[in-house]
Formats: sequence, C-alpha cells, structure tokens
Amino acid sequence: MEVPNGQTDEIGCRGVSEVLNRIGDKWSIQVVIALRDRSRRFNELKRQVGEISQQMLTRTLKTLERDGLVDRKVCHTTPPQVEYALTPLGHSLAEPVRYLAEWARAHLPTIHSHRRAYDAGQKPSPQP
Amino acid sequence: MEVPNGQTDEIGCRGVSEVLNRIGDKWSIQVVIALRDRSRRFNELKRQVGEISQQMLTRTLKTLERDGLVDRKVCHTTPPQVEYALTPLGHSLAEPVRYLAEWARAHLPTIHSHRRAYDAGQKPSPQP
Repeated sequence: MEVPNGQTDEIGCRGVSEVLNRIGDKWSIQVVIALRDRSRRFNELKRQVGEISQQMLTRTLKTLERDGLVDRKVCHTTPPQVEYALTPLGHSLAEPVRYLAEWARAHLPTIHSHRRAYDAGQKPSPQP
Repeated sequence: MEVPNGQTDEIGCRGVSEVLNRIGDKWSIQVVIALRDRSRRFNELKRQVGEISQQMLTRTLKTLERDGLVDRKVCHTTPPQVEYALTPLGHSLAEPVRYLAEWARAHLPTIHSHRRAYDAGQKPSPQP
C-alpha cells in the first residue's frame, strides 16, 4: 500500500511504538527467538530464556498468546503436556526481530565504545 | 561472522534485548524515524514526535547521542542553532526499525482482532 511519505512515517511511528511497547520487552523478544525453530514445552523455554522467573514466563506467554503470536497446544499424553509454538503471525514477526538482532550483534561493541567515550567526555572517531 | 546456530541465537537474544532495552522505548524509536530523512532542530523534532515533553525529548536525544546514534551540531549563526542528525550508525539502525515499522503497520489490525477475540474468550481463525 503506497501512501504519501509523511503519512507512512506517522503510521510507522505509531505502529512501531505500539508494537515495541507490547513486544519490545526483553522477555517477549527472547521467547519469540527461542520459538523460532520449533515448539517448546514450558520448562524447556524457561531453561532457554535465561534468568526469567516462572511467573514472568507465564505472563509473557499469555500476552503473546493474546496477541496471536504464540499458540498453546495441549498434547493428550499422560500426563498431559503443554507446548508453545509461534503462530504464522509470530513467525512473520521473528523476521524483523532477527534483522534487529543481527544489527545488535554487529553494532553493540560500537555502541559500548561510544558510551565509554561519551562518559569520558570525548567523542570517538565516527564509525559507519 | 558465522558462529554455530545455538551461539548465534544466544548472542542474538542478549544483543537484541540490550538494544531494545536501550532504544526500544517509543520515544527513541520515534526520534530515529523522525531523523531518517534529514537533520532537524529541537523544536521541529518536538512538533514531529507528537506528545513528547521538552524534558523527555532532551533526555532521549542525550541517550541517543551517548550511544553514538545521533549527532548534535551547533550552527554558528546568530542566534546559534542546534541541529540533530542521525550518525551513520543511527542510519544503519533506521533500516531494521523501518522493517519492524512495516511489520507493525501490516499486522497491527490482526493483533488487535486477536486481542478482542481472546478477551471475548474465543480464538479467531488463524491468519498468516
């Protein structure tokens, strides 16, 4: 859909703000990344997403489920097992998240050196 | 840089969490988007980034400057004017942010309908 430039920016601003406010917390992002390749059980997710509490993982999964990004499947085994998987919508979000993760991996050292230089009262030489 | 898959994910998780914790607040994102096409003066930015307070815009710009994402230029006019611009690093961040904004614009209506359905106690039919 083509819209005039200013309008795109405005919609983009609001949209991305809202999405980041919702899924931009570090736990949601880590759950989306952890589910990227396959579905996982709760305890498996808890191990993979380091340092998350049981309560916070429960809350994060519920929010992602409410947004339609994660699906909760009950497997009728004995005892019953619950698995979490990305929905097609969740998989489509995993793409831009991966792109941002790649940017982060590539540029975090530069950001860190900028911070150190800024805090030391000097600017580092410009880096691409 | 190629690293084994698990390792990529782990670094990706931490990296993207840290980046989102820093720049994932809605104001930073909106400032990055607002500066994408050209440099702007403080009041111009304030008008463009709706509803931001003067204090919050000052704080956001300082954080982005410390991270090396935004450059503050003093123009030696009378009276002196200050302009803010994305650095090359900031421009490189604008790309994944734009990608996420596009995802948001495309999928927010779906997320909203999932929320309504979830809150009404029913799941909507799956959507890609």
